[in-house]
Amino acid sequence: MSSPLRSVHWDDGKLIILDQTKLPEEVTYQSCNNYRVIIEAIRKLAVRGAPAIGVAAAYAVVLAAIEASHLDDEERIYQFLQQASQEIKDARPTAVNLSWAVTEMNKIISKKKTDSLITDLLLRAKKIEEQDQKICNQIADNGAALFKEQGKLNLLTHCNSGALATAGIGTAFGVIRRLHEKGQLECLYMDETRPLLQGARLTATEAVSLGMNCRLITDNMAAIVMSMKHIDAVIVGADRIAANGDSANKIGTYGLAILANYHHIPFYFAAPFSTFDFSISNGKGIPIETRNEEEVKEFHHVRTAPAQVKALNPAFDITPHELITGIITEKGVLKPPYIENIKRYERSLNI
Amino acid sequence: MSSPLRSVHWDDGKLIILDQTKLPEEVTYQSCNNYRVIIEAIRKLAVRGAPAIGVAAAYAVVLAAIEASHLDDEERIYQFLQQASQEIKDARPTAVNLSWAVTEMNKIISKKKTDSLITDLLLRAKKIEEQDQKICNQIADNGAALFKEQGKLNLLTHCNSGALATAGIGTAFGVIRRLHEKGQLECLYMDETRPLLQGARLTATEAVSLGMNCRLITDNMAAIVMSMKHIDAVIVGADRIAANGDSANKIGTYGLAILANYHHIPFYFAAPFSTFDFSISNGKGIPIETRNEEEVKEFHHVRTAPAQVKALNPAFDITPHELITGIITEKGVLKPPYIENIKRYERSLNI
Repeated sequence: MSSPLRSVHWDDGKLIILDQTKLPEEVTYQSCNNYRVIIEAIRKLAVRGAPAIGVAAAYAVVLAAIEASHLDDEERIYQFLQQASQEIKDARPTAVNLSWAVTEMNKIISKKKTDSLITDLLLRAKKIEEQDQKICNQIADNGAALFKEQGKLNLLTHCNSGALATAGIGTAFGVIRRLHEKGQLECLYMDETRPLLQGARLTATEAVSLGMNCRLITDNMAAIVMSMKHIDAVIVGADRIAANGDSANKIGTYGLAILANYHHIPFYFAAPFSTFDFSISNGKGIPIETRNEEEVKEFHHVRTAPAQVKALNPAFDITPHELITGIITEKGVLKPPYIENIKRYERSLNI
Repeated sequence: MSSPLRSVHWDDGKLIILDQTKLPEEVTYQSCNNYRVIIEAIRKLAVRGAPAIGVAAAYAVVLAAIEASHLDDEERIYQFLQQASQEIKDARPTAVNLSWAVTEMNKIISKKKTDSLITDLLLRAKKIEEQDQKICNQIADNGAALFKEQGKLNLLTHCNSGALATAGIGTAFGVIRRLHEKGQLECLYMDETRPLLQGARLTATEAVSLGMNCRLITDNMAAIVMSMKHIDAVIVGADRIAANGDSANKIGTYGLAILANYHHIPFYFAAPFSTFDFSISNGKGIPIETRNEEEVKEFHHVRTAPAQVKALNPAFDITPHELITGIITEKGVLKPPYIENIKRYERSLNI
């Protein structure tokens, strides 16, 4: 991989999406000039990663507005946009950045400045994208600062939270990248992350392209690696964080947090402010997406289990706040007690 | 799968091995008339599962003796058999049943009754095979008795410890099968068991063929299943058990034991006596096989990670005895304190 891969970018009236389902074997970009195509890309995980989904959703609203502009009266335009916004929000249920981005775009729509609507929406979408890049850098700085007194680090991560999951350098992976740039990374251990292998396909691709010393492992090797390799910290991204700090992330994260706790290894989430859902008091309120069981029973169209067997396929799990050492955000690192500290954080952001 | 699959069986001077690497898609039997072919089958996991490997190794010694019988003097015959026995023992390092079976066969060889050597070895190998069938049934009875006061059970297992891993009905899976026969199985959750997917390919095939209510999960779903599905027990097989109860089994078992401990779920190993290695005081002394990293970088023969990335591939891990609720054997169920109870067990067997 010589040139950096970009998960999403806007190009002259179209959203260009890197089809991540084909990585690492094929680098294919999909040009989307219709919001429904973006919804489909989000559903099939061509674009994935909570922040990147947020950016894609913002541009999907722009494309819906372009489509709506051909309608003959204002009421129908706003009806169309309301309907389209709901469809976009419903593309995937767990990552809150998706509905957060659509809500931000709808603040523009609700001003009903029809003449400048498309321009205003495009500006807002670009701002969301640029903000995400900045937030990634701030998260990386705040996360790296946690380890500034330590020497070389062995880190472990799950799924993909890098450039491919955001519009910037990533969240959890951004922290790891910053530590690598500072010469502090001894080795990054990467869970392959079944069933869709985002760790093997995406994180390994990013880590190798950045020249990191890294090792790919199957998810079930995390425990032996923790017991034998002196892991200094586990750092992962998040898709939604409840008001008490309970955090949703890719399936397997909860188990990893239990393993880290058993081995006395610090366990960090890294995520932008838009990942917090203050309306949900604890993790039980976070909706968990269930995906098609075929994802568990096959891979790349190769069947790996008997056709008759049933499979479970929850795409996310919830890590309770008591297993979390800290939540790295662009504003700083949240630590326990989470309910109080998240409340203080929310208040400071509302000022 | 209409007729039951047999992992290994002797047929008129040849060992017939089911090539488990091709399951569930293809049912292919390999006919082995040379001990080196059996070694290769063990190495590539065409035959796997500690007890089945033991049986295959015993028959490999028989084939070596048939080959040696063409040599012209006795000394050369016994040298050949010594060399062949060592090669067979070295086929895989972790499962102790392999070297146990070869040692049993060598007790016959050391009697140096050349005239009846092949017949005597064949009788001993058949006895090991028959014993394994009986032991499986006894383990199943002893394991099922643990749950006789309970109603319907949700169980979880890892890898494959069924008919395909033994010459009988299995060890851990045999217990589950017995509970199913008694109408006590609510649901069996099966880890797919990366990298080689013995759970998806083998256990799921066995469970479906027996009409069990079961669900396949990826390894990283075990934690969410434990937190949501009221799992009554985890039962797994073992490849080698140290004198203090520390137990080696398929990679991922150690992590699963930590997860079970966190969720207050009983965690059982089920294994025959031949799995105990009294010469090893604790798990640190158990050799862990490291396999080719390509197994991690590909998924059922499809590449899933960039070619340049390095991977780890330990095939087993060690579960410390403090995480083990009990070890189900053909003689009964061992419970803590393990050092004392295993010693008592060893003494009773030496009488």
